[in-house]
Amino acid sequence: MTGRALSAPAPDTALAARLFDELAARTTDPSGEGITRAAYGEGEAIAHDILRREALALGMQVRTDAAANLYATLRGERSGPAVFVGSHLDSVPKGGNFDGAAGVLMGLSVAAGFVRAGRRPPLDLIVMAIRAEESTWFPASYIGSRAAFGRLAADELSSLRRAGDGVALGQAIDAAGGDAQALAAGAAGLSPEAIALFIEPHIEQGPVLLEAGASLGFATGIRGSFRYRNAVCHGEYAHSGATPRAYRRDCVRAFALLVHAMEAAWTRRERSGEDLTVTFGQVTTDAAEAAFSKIAGKVSFSIDVRSADSGTLEAVEADLALAIAEIEASQGVRFDLGPRTASKPARMAPEVVFSLGEAARHAGVAPREMACGAGHDAAVFAQMGVPTGMILLRNANGSHNPSEAMTMEDFAAGAAVLAALVANRPDPHR
Amino acid sequence: MTGRALSAPAPDTALAARLFDELAARTTDPSGEGITRAAYGEGEAIAHDILRREALALGMQVRTDAAANLYATLRGERSGPAVFVGSHLDSVPKGGNFDGAAGVLMGLSVAAGFVRAGRRPPLDLIVMAIRAEESTWFPASYIGSRAAFGRLAADELSSLRRAGDGVALGQAIDAAGGDAQALAAGAAGLSPEAIALFIEPHIEQGPVLLEAGASLGFATGIRGSFRYRNAVCHGEYAHSGATPRAYRRDCVRAFALLVHAMEAAWTRRERSGEDLTVTFGQVTTDAAEAAFSKIAGKVSFSIDVRSADSGTLEAVEADLALAIAEIEASQGVRFDLGPRTASKPARMAPEVVFSLGEAARHAGVAPREMACGAGHDAAVFAQMGVPTGMILLRNANGSHNPSEAMTMEDFAAGAAVLAALVANRPDPHR
Repeated sequence: MTGRALSAPAPDTALAARLFDELAARTTDPSGEGITRAAYGEGEAIAHDILRREALALGMQVRTDAAANLYATLRGERSGPAVFVGSHLDSVPKGGNFDGAAGVLMGLSVAAGFVRAGRRPPLDLIVMAIRAEESTWFPASYIGSRAAFGRLAADELSSLRRAGDGVALGQAIDAAGGDAQALAAGAAGLSPEAIALFIEPHIEQGPVLLEAGASLGFATGIRGSFRYRNAVCHGEYAHSGATPRAYRRDCVRAFALLVHAMEAAWTRRERSGEDLTVTFGQVTTDAAEAAFSKIAGKVSFSIDVRSADSGTLEAVEADLALAIAEIEASQGVRFDLGPRTASKPARMAPEVVFSLGEAARHAGVAPREMACGAGHDAAVFAQMGVPTGMILLRNANGSHNPSEAMTMEDFAAGAAVLAALVANRPDPHR
Repeated sequence: MTGRALSAPAPDTALAARLFDELAARTTDPSGEGITRAAYGEGEAIAHDILRREALALGMQVRTDAAANLYATLRGERSGPAVFVGSHLDSVPKGGNFDGAAGVLMGLSVAAGFVRAGRRPPLDLIVMAIRAEESTWFPASYIGSRAAFGRLAADELSSLRRAGDGVALGQAIDAAGGDAQALAAGAAGLSPEAIALFIEPHIEQGPVLLEAGASLGFATGIRGSFRYRNAVCHGEYAHSGATPRAYRRDCVRAFALLVHAMEAAWTRRERSGEDLTVTFGQVTTDAAEAAFSKIAGKVSFSIDVRSADSGTLEAVEADLALAIAEIEASQGVRFDLGPRTASKPARMAPEVVFSLGEAARHAGVAPREMACGAGHDAAVFAQMGVPTGMILLRNANGSHNPSEAMTMEDFAAGAAVLAALVANRPDPHR
């Protein structure tokens, strides 16, 4: 778009603001605290209904796939591969209103801008609402986007069960209007060839943009991860005052040593320039068995390791195995890490990052490139070979909590960049 | 008793064995797992009823005090200060059958031995069943024995509430046949002058005797302690993948650092010969808020520190405060240790330890002296100026669990020593 860039129609951010309010009002957690939009559950269904209603009101075409992902299409000047803008509409329990929804509503506000201006984008613009991105509901990453490409394993449909009510994924998909049987047979709602590029706008879930004083960031990559969500250390309960040190098999001590060892590994790798986060987000002694006067014979915990680099992830797995072996030997405990889940790091397409930079310049916004630490559906699109980018929005207080604080000014800046990109996107096959 | 020691009547260990069986059968936890005798609750009441029944059957005199402690007296040849043998009859939830009960039944088996032999001991022998020793029920140490001496603080009767049902201590005492109002006014069921000596037989709660291959130990002292049962670390929830290290206020990391720092303090003090245990028995992230993909913004935990030496306890409190200040500064978290409970270290009377050694020689058992790491009511008697000793019984698998494994052979060895002590105890005031 260098040189003769077309001016983009102003996105309808007032529409987005109104829909954010409606979403918040209708999907507030029953406790009154935060937003709850369960994957394939009630809150997510409300959000999809709102999007469908608004897309139809704008004259867009709406379809769903076998995973109940929703696609709202604004016809472009040319047929062929379309520009996709999408994110998810589920939330964690008692989460925030912007995580996921901001991306979908930004796409919609850009589409609405074209409609209000009586213009059509050069290529079809498809706003996609993706299902089940938050793996707190079903313990697997990127369910909706993988399913869209026919990449959900058949056994996931029966084996994954939703936290809280235990409903199987396949059942939940059918209940939401999808078709689990078709998914099990590998049905795909999307093919990579039909996608000119995929953009996922999303609030930043860390403090990087806030600290840098920048409203927007463009992801260069998305960290992959491995996780053990239900790891256990087994030792021996014993009297806190009567058991000499040498006879202890203390799981709290062993856990603390493991945290310490992994912190040391992180420090070492960070110093040598590797991209890494290591988080022990959950730990608990057994509520029924543990006591202040007992050495803990059992500790349950989770570990989450992320990196933009596959090699680092593999190396940290080895660090973890080594630390565990040493601690088992020295402390007389036994670790059982339990089921492992993982996601691969994804690289955003350099030409998309470049185009976003151009669009930002066009929209008068200072571009900032950064690694994205949180996992996003964009990773799946990138792995499928789709030219993919992310617009990250400055956000205070992190995500997955009711205090998420994206401003509508930053949202508007993101929408302006997205509109410029959509208005100027050349045919990728020219 | 050197020189002309009297032979002691054989203790009635068969009676003890029968009563252990009856106790186990009647106070099994409803889950079927272990023994539950709640302080001032149902299981403890059953145990007291059994003791009362058997003491009356032996012709002993039975009384209770305002704290519902039970005293069964076998008249001696002379009036005046009596030999007390006692321990507690409550247990932790799903605990073992021997912790506490072994001491009471050993006293009873020795009394029964005198009755069966048609003999009277030189001094009154009083078997005492002490209430509420296990502080898992009401969060305070030595309730029954402190109350016996009129040393329960009036506010403890209203402020201490029982785990599980929340019943206030005073109410529970009244329900068990005691008189909370009298206790609040300082009523004492015992005066130190009336006690020639106090012996508490108790299973060892650590592995020291087992590892040494000794059936019995005589305590030289009882460790004191300080505890924070409801400590909390406050930090900030944040996204595990998107929050760079420098911006984390990670409570799990902070907790691990605290465990590490206190382990280091323990190592340092142990090397310089100080007596010490440091135990973090409980730790938990918030069940509702924590997730594998979130940095933990809150961790609750307990810490229990014990030493036979008051100076060491004070020094470790200072170590703890220093470690907390450093971790708060480096990690951006805040610790709130919450309420503190503590018990003072107690020294067993050297002349009682000596007399136990003599009695052991007389009974043909090899004496072994050791520090006692667990807290016991004997500490209260020692602090009240009563000449006090403890007979520790070899026990596998620790205590406070269903796998306690004292053998009746070791129990019989303890009873033989106790009988020899009772049979030969000279008038302390001669």
